[in-house]
Amino acid sequence: MGGLFGIVSQTDCVADLYYGTDYHSHLGTKRGGMAVRNAHVFHRAIHNIENSYFRTKFEAELASFHGRQGIGVISDTDPQPLIIGSHLGTFGIVTVGRINNLDELVDQAFARKGNFSGTSDGIANPTEMVAKLICQQDSFEAGIEAAQEAIRGSCSLILLTEKGIYAARDRLGRTPLVVGRRPGAFAVTSESSAFPNLGFGVDYFLGPGEILRLTADGYEQRCAPGPRMQICSFLWVYYGYPASEYEGINVEEVRYRCGAALARRDDVQADFVAGIPDSGIGHALGYAGERKLPYRRPFVKYTPTWPRSFMPQNQEMRDLVARMKLIPVRRLIEGRRLLFCDDSIVRGTQLRENVQVLFDCGACQVHMRLACPTLIFPCEFLNFSSSRSTLDLAGRKIIKKLEGAEDRNLDDYARAGSAKNLEMIEHIREQLHLSSLIYQRLDDLVAAIGLPREQLCTHCWDGSSYF
Amino acid sequence: MGGLFGIVSQTDCVADLYYGTDYHSHLGTKRGGMAVRNAHVFHRAIHNIENSYFRTKFEAELASFHGRQGIGVISDTDPQPLIIGSHLGTFGIVTVGRINNLDELVDQAFARKGNFSGTSDGIANPTEMVAKLICQQDSFEAGIEAAQEAIRGSCSLILLTEKGIYAARDRLGRTPLVVGRRPGAFAVTSESSAFPNLGFGVDYFLGPGEILRLTADGYEQRCAPGPRMQICSFLWVYYGYPASEYEGINVEEVRYRCGAALARRDDVQADFVAGIPDSGIGHALGYAGERKLPYRRPFVKYTPTWPRSFMPQNQEMRDLVARMKLIPVRRLIEGRRLLFCDDSIVRGTQLRENVQVLFDCGACQVHMRLACPTLIFPCEFLNFSSSRSTLDLAGRKIIKKLEGAEDRNLDDYARAGSAKNLEMIEHIREQLHLSSLIYQRLDDLVAAIGLPREQLCTHCWDGSSYF
Amino acid sequence: MGGLFGIVSQTDCVADLYYGTDYHSHLGTKRGGMAVRNAHVFHRAIHNIENSYFRTKFEAELASFHGRQGIGVISDTDPQPLIIGSHLGTFGIVTVGRINNLDELVDQAFARKGNFSGTSDGIANPTEMVAKLICQQDSFEAGIEAAQEAIRGSCSLILLTEKGIYAARDRLGRTPLVVGRRPGAFAVTSESSAFPNLGFGVDYFLGPGEILRLTADGYEQRCAPGPRMQICSFLWVYYGYPASEYEGINVEEVRYRCGAALARRDDVQADFVAGIPDSGIGHALGYAGERKLPYRRPFVKYTPTWPRSFMPQNQEMRDLVARMKLIPVRRLIEGRRLLFCDDSIVRGTQLRENVQVLFDCGACQVHMRLACPTLIFPCEFLNFSSSRSTLDLAGRKIIKKLEGAEDRNLDDYARAGSAKNLEMIEHIREQLHLSSLIYQRLDDLVAAIGLPREQLCTHCWDGSSYF
Amino acid sequence: MGGLFGIVSQTDCVADLYYGTDYHSHLGTKRGGMAVRNAHVFHRAIHNIENSYFRTKFEAELASFHGRQGIGVISDTDPQPLIIGSHLGTFGIVTVGRINNLDELVDQAFARKGNFSGTSDGIANPTEMVAKLICQQDSFEAGIEAAQEAIRGSCSLILLTEKGIYAARDRLGRTPLVVGRRPGAFAVTSESSAFPNLGFGVDYFLGPGEILRLTADGYEQRCAPGPRMQICSFLWVYYGYPASEYEGINVEEVRYRCGAALARRDDVQADFVAGIPDSGIGHALGYAGERKLPYRRPFVKYTPTWPRSFMPQNQEMRDLVARMKLIPVRRLIEGRRLLFCDDSIVRGTQLRENVQVLFDCGACQVHMRLACPTLIFPCEFLNFSSSRSTLDLAGRKIIKKLEGAEDRNLDDYARAGSAKNLEMIEHIREQLHLSSLIYQRLDDLVAAIGLPREQLCTHCWDGSSYF
Repeated sequence: MGGLFGIVSQTDCVADLYYGTDYHSHLGTKRGGMAVRNAHVFHRAIHNIENSYFRTKFEAELASFHGRQGIGVISDTDPQPLIIGSHLGTFGIVTVGRINNLDELVDQAFARKGNFSGTSDGIANPTEMVAKLICQQDSFEAGIEAAQEAIRGSCSLILLTEKGIYAARDRLGRTPLVVGRRPGAFAVTSESSAFPNLGFGVDYFLGPGEILRLTADGYEQRCAPGPRMQICSFLWVYYGYPASEYEGINVEEVRYRCGAALARRDDVQADFVAGIPDSGIGHALGYAGERKLPYRRPFVKYTPTWPRSFMPQNQEMRDLVARMKLIPVRRLIEGRRLLFCDDSIVRGTQLRENVQVLFDCGACQVHMRLACPTLIFPCEFLNFSSSRSTLDLAGRKIIKKLEGAEDRNLDDYARAGSAKNLEMIEHIREQLHLSSLIYQRLDDLVAAIGLPREQLCTHCWDGSSYF
Repeated sequence: MGGLFGIVSQTDCVADLYYGTDYHSHLGTKRGGMAVRNAHVFHRAIHNIENSYFRTKFEAELASFHGRQGIGVISDTDPQPLIIGSHLGTFGIVTVGRINNLDELVDQAFARKGNFSGTSDGIANPTEMVAKLICQQDSFEAGIEAAQEAIRGSCSLILLTEKGIYAARDRLGRTPLVVGRRPGAFAVTSESSAFPNLGFGVDYFLGPGEILRLTADGYEQRCAPGPRMQICSFLWVYYGYPASEYEGINVEEVRYRCGAALARRDDVQADFVAGIPDSGIGHALGYAGERKLPYRRPFVKYTPTWPRSFMPQNQEMRDLVARMKLIPVRRLIEGRRLLFCDDSIVRGTQLRENVQVLFDCGACQVHMRLACPTLIFPCEFLNFSSSRSTLDLAGRKIIKKLEGAEDRNLDDYARAGSAKNLEMIEHIREQLHLSSLIYQRLDDLVAAIGLPREQLCTHCWDGSSYF
Repeated sequence: MGGLFGIVSQTDCVADLYYGTDYHSHLGTKRGGMAVRNAHVFHRAIHNIENSYFRTKFEAELASFHGRQGIGVISDTDPQPLIIGSHLGTFGIVTVGRINNLDELVDQAFARKGNFSGTSDGIANPTEMVAKLICQQDSFEAGIEAAQEAIRGSCSLILLTEKGIYAARDRLGRTPLVVGRRPGAFAVTSESSAFPNLGFGVDYFLGPGEILRLTADGYEQRCAPGPRMQICSFLWVYYGYPASEYEGINVEEVRYRCGAALARRDDVQADFVAGIPDSGIGHALGYAGERKLPYRRPFVKYTPTWPRSFMPQNQEMRDLVARMKLIPVRRLIEGRRLLFCDDSIVRGTQLRENVQVLFDCGACQVHMRLACPTLIFPCEFLNFSSSRSTLDLAGRKIIKKLEGAEDRNLDDYARAGSAKNLEMIEHIREQLHLSSLIYQRLDDLVAAIGLPREQLCTHCWDGSSYF
Repeated sequence: MGGLFGIVSQTDCVADLYYGTDYHSHLGTKRGGMAVRNAHVFHRAIHNIENSYFRTKFEAELASFHGRQGIGVISDTDPQPLIIGSHLGTFGIVTVGRINNLDELVDQAFARKGNFSGTSDGIANPTEMVAKLICQQDSFEAGIEAAQEAIRGSCSLILLTEKGIYAARDRLGRTPLVVGRRPGAFAVTSESSAFPNLGFGVDYFLGPGEILRLTADGYEQRCAPGPRMQICSFLWVYYGYPASEYEGINVEEVRYRCGAALARRDDVQADFVAGIPDSGIGHALGYAGERKLPYRRPFVKYTPTWPRSFMPQNQEMRDLVARMKLIPVRRLIEGRRLLFCDDSIVRGTQLRENVQVLFDCGACQVHMRLACPTLIFPCEFLNFSSSRSTLDLAGRKIIKKLEGAEDRNLDDYARAGSAKNLEMIEHIREQLHLSSLIYQRLDDLVAAIGLPREQLCTHCWDGSSYF
């Protein structure tokens, strides 16, 4: 995944850029970067954020940043922003997305005797590739359109140029961009949760493929949105921050509706409802509210120092870490029937350990409810974490076991309530030692989000790929 | 405040010490320290944790720690652990508490021509003072008892010696210590929430003034507990981690009961209940459950990078930071009647800003319920943050304004439901622009905790000081 | 300036690369970089060395470098090495030199719709420009030749490719490259002083424009040297390390001969001879030996912590620093007639301060002898420090004052012994408060080096520019 | 060893303290520390300088130091300065020296129930011991005198108190202290070479056991010097910086006289004279001058990055490092007869490697002349590096081999020109593969220094121990 933030202001924008970019930290764990432009000078810094926070890493050098325009990025992949010299002028660029045909585009560039300067491990930097595609044209607008045309996959981006900031959402709108406004400044962000504390109000949701140019005085459309959308449903289910909105629809509210939908189809007996922190909490509150059951916290996350997963060096420590974030509250667990909500099950290894801890603490029953259907098709459009390959998926493993082949009868397994679907879920339940296990139906999920199904990407559940 | 952790094991204890100490990070923001003992060698490190995490600071040098016995501390005051050379042998020491007669004790030491080596800013290090008092006697046990006798205030401590670890709770048991057991190891901790993920089960709650000696093979009482207890009530209300227990009573459950108690005396109309993160959440869940109202999250804390308050360098940034941790969710707030629970109001400045944000986002009403009575008497027994001086307290300011003197009729103001009490609360409500404001009654709080009132320190609400 | 080091070995080459590159630290103060190649993976790191040493900066990550081929650079300009993806394969590149027509070459690249990815401050990275020129051709050899043809100025370079290391000296041989050999490894270096402690013997001096390819098994000529050479004379006078050789001629020996040549034309009375550390020492030893005068050290450099100039942050400190490196030894100075040798006078400001200190310590007379003629023409071929602009030169300032114009009668002033030459020198002597001042004659300098005059660049003294 | 610096000024003294302390970096490699006093507040910092420079380590926090009085230390042993709270007031302390009866003094302190707070590895901090001894008395003066009386070994020290700075030289004056004066400030230093660049002139050499108190207005004697002196001769031979003076006698001049004395008793044929950098250079210049032989530099030290020995982590690198500092200049060595001067031979391992390099580079003969006699008795008075234990000494090893016992006939071996003395030297010569080897005679060394023999400690050569 990853997230973008850009700002143009009538006054210095560095503090806003710093905090605004930091508010995307939940979207990536690898690198953070910022660039500002001041007269004709660009100042840029990139840091590894695998072992420390974005803000911690940039704090020391913040005083050396000055400027009224800036872009920032949290990246799970390549180092960004890049500062590019070109016939279009010098510009900065940040991107988020995934280029499935990168090798092919690189070969085309080589055929033109183009070269890549930020190459490492023999692999071209995708953001440099995007920049190169843009520079092949005679304007930023034409360049971005040509890049969107050439890229198979998805790429939303922000450019920092002497004419202002260009914000461009990917062709099918898989990853959103939102414009915010406050007196004297405009900003564009992946997550609108970055706005309220910086004084910005949500002003405009970019459409699929749309290009805007922002200056301190306003913004104008440079390319109209396309007719078709495939926004990632998982943004609401898992990725997005609860305070964010996409297409005008708030994440936290969707999660309440997801939980409520699960509750309406459920009558299991439970002493209380709980969420697996953090992403299961919203779903669980919705469930508890609907069924008028108490909401309790049998797992408390130790946020003072385990806010997100920094990676310790050796494996022995790493195993220890896996157990450390969530602290069980034995007094709440012992002798109780617990119902947990979570967003989804990917591999299930972590969840299995959590369930074991609950039974070790004396739980009578542990029921699990998931906010979305079983994951069956790996994402081909965004940079999910590398572990999300096909056979990592708990559902897919079961299918292989049952069918003796990796990809037989997938549609049957995906259809809620079918015999194969129920068999697959029963196998997953057993593996996780759960008392019961229910997944959300896809139509309930689509209804909870509230957009027409054809505007949502639901590929990971039903393998669909409309466009 | 601050927190302690000690461990003795049949195998190397460093990883446990590291994680166990880290789990006290919510109790202090200034310094962290660890010491291990290996044969006759002590290895010790102390780091400033104002700008980074305990674990981050110690990670690099963890490989240089080796040993089967260790002590750790999160300290809001002096640098610890100290390694002391003495006629009792070399030993390590960590303490938590407050020494009100430090100057007097220092003068007595000077009269004996004793000197302090860790002095800075002209002020003796309290932990060094405690060590010095211990070294005046002929055994660790006699030394600790003499120190407890001499100290006015409170001091729980752990010693790392060649005979094992000594754990000693303060004379009136204001700050707890709990022993944990697992095969091959014993540990002692301020917060029992440090235990479950390290595989320890709660084994024993030390009594007031009790001294234990722990070795890898077991522990034995070296000084019996005293007859009187004054454990800090605020541990359950605010300080403690939800997964912790003191005197066998779990924090999270007390908070549910606090919220429920507030709810039983309340019938205000509200669309939903919410907690001010993090400490108000438990109280709010209890309230919501009791009144069967939905629990919602109109404020989400940005835990990925704002887990606790690191202090930025300049004031301009610092003001910005004050607003940054909590992100309002406008869709949940707009047009709604909100009921918030929080643990307490100290100065009220932060809460006033929060309330303002809620009304800015379109809230119709904002009601506030506090889990404890109005704070009127500053703590004299523990190291509350320095800002908690008398006139910082919101209640006390009002009293001064109404009475024209700082300390007139304090008992009247403290008595729940008295005219003066209600007048004081009404003034606070006005200042914070709240729609309504209700504080917990002290008897309800005592009942929610569940200990006899005479065993609880309730000084900050009623000025009592039993012993 | 700057310096290069490359190595190919049958075993891991990282330690050699690390130390070999470090031995070029006297040639630059801005950035250091290293890259190694291992199978198809490149590992690269670049650090700022303005505030710490090359070795100190790279030490922590040395363990992450592995490979049998590597290149390193000390750079006074752009960040290097670059790792370039291209139709020629992925390769690393380091360069040293100066591209006078960079803007023109950039414009040509823009016209081809090429872009620069490492741009900062709106200025293209010269090394990226060189890489781009190479990538326009169909082989590394053709690419390097085309680049040498296109560049006005000077560029020696090393490429790290899957076919081995390419070493290419600039077209007129201004900056040397030397090949070293030891069992199982070959290396190429700017300074042969990097060789003896790594076990390499000098094997081959590249000619002007020559291109070699080195593998662990040997090296072969890929482009023959050109007929004309203009190697920088200042390498022997000032830049080079005493243990280095260029064209088979050792630096320290040239300096002894320079000093001896000055001595043979001098009969001033002096109590002893001394050198301004470090670069004046060799010249002074030659002078003292020739005149059988004692050599003494009235200035001692505090090498334990002032080995080279790290730049403190504020100006007040910076002024202090200017005085700190050299400690005067009053007992040697008081009442004595001192004769100092130094390499040259650029601005003269530092020297003037040094002379003042000597007189403050009681010197009777201070005579100065310079190893080369008066600097009159700024270097157009190498990256001298930016301060060496025309009017910074002490001689040029005097000329402007005497002539009322910057560039009148320069040849007259340059001619040793002419009336104008002597008048200029007398003015410089006065400004520096020297008792006497004598510059080396150019023919004496050329003889001391020992190469035919037409093979030496003597531009800074006589304005010549043969090719 | 180690070095001290203290300053009192009418204006802020931080920059002077910083640079003044740094100028003692050649005296220690382990820790550096500074403390300043401002009104009643002390600010103190201590850093490990094993891997970086004193200035580099303190630079970042320099801005947090403010004050008109300060003390600094380069320490090879314990962390300093300490800030001590005591009945005499709060004070800072730095020491240099060696306490041979530390265990005994610690036991006495334990008997008084005193404790040590800075203990690590079970060993009391010697500086804390000195502070404790001082605090047993009723004034700083009485305390220092009592400490000097109690300590067996040597201890010079500086105290930072509210009454000014106390400077106290050890009882027998083994380690010197010098007072410097400039308008508005006084300073005291171990090495007077710290003075000229800070604007101080040498004002007063403290006598043995003398105590001074310095304020910004002047200084006064608080305890008169004792009648007997045993200043370390090795200060002039090796430890001291060339620009320093002790007892009014300059180090560099003593070295010239040492070399000249060697030359007067020598007639070996040599092409030129050279010094082993850095400490052999002064001796070699004296030798070359006396015999009218050229002085040359066949070894050049790579000072840009090898100014002093930082310790790399693994042994493989460490072995490499041993060879790296000195670069041989083959053109000067090949076919020549070389005569080298050095200060002394301790273990001889490094020198043996150097000699091997010279022969590898084609030297015909390598003659070695040492500035002092053979080291036979390990130092008992100062903290020489730990490797200087008895059997590390090259001479002592030979004696053991020849005599079959460690300490038989030592006086015979020590007597210059005796049969045993010559036999020992011949064995050392053989081991080092030297063409010839001559040590200085002790009477020549004493004459070169210029003090009466009974005022010099010559223990390491003759085992004498006058007092």
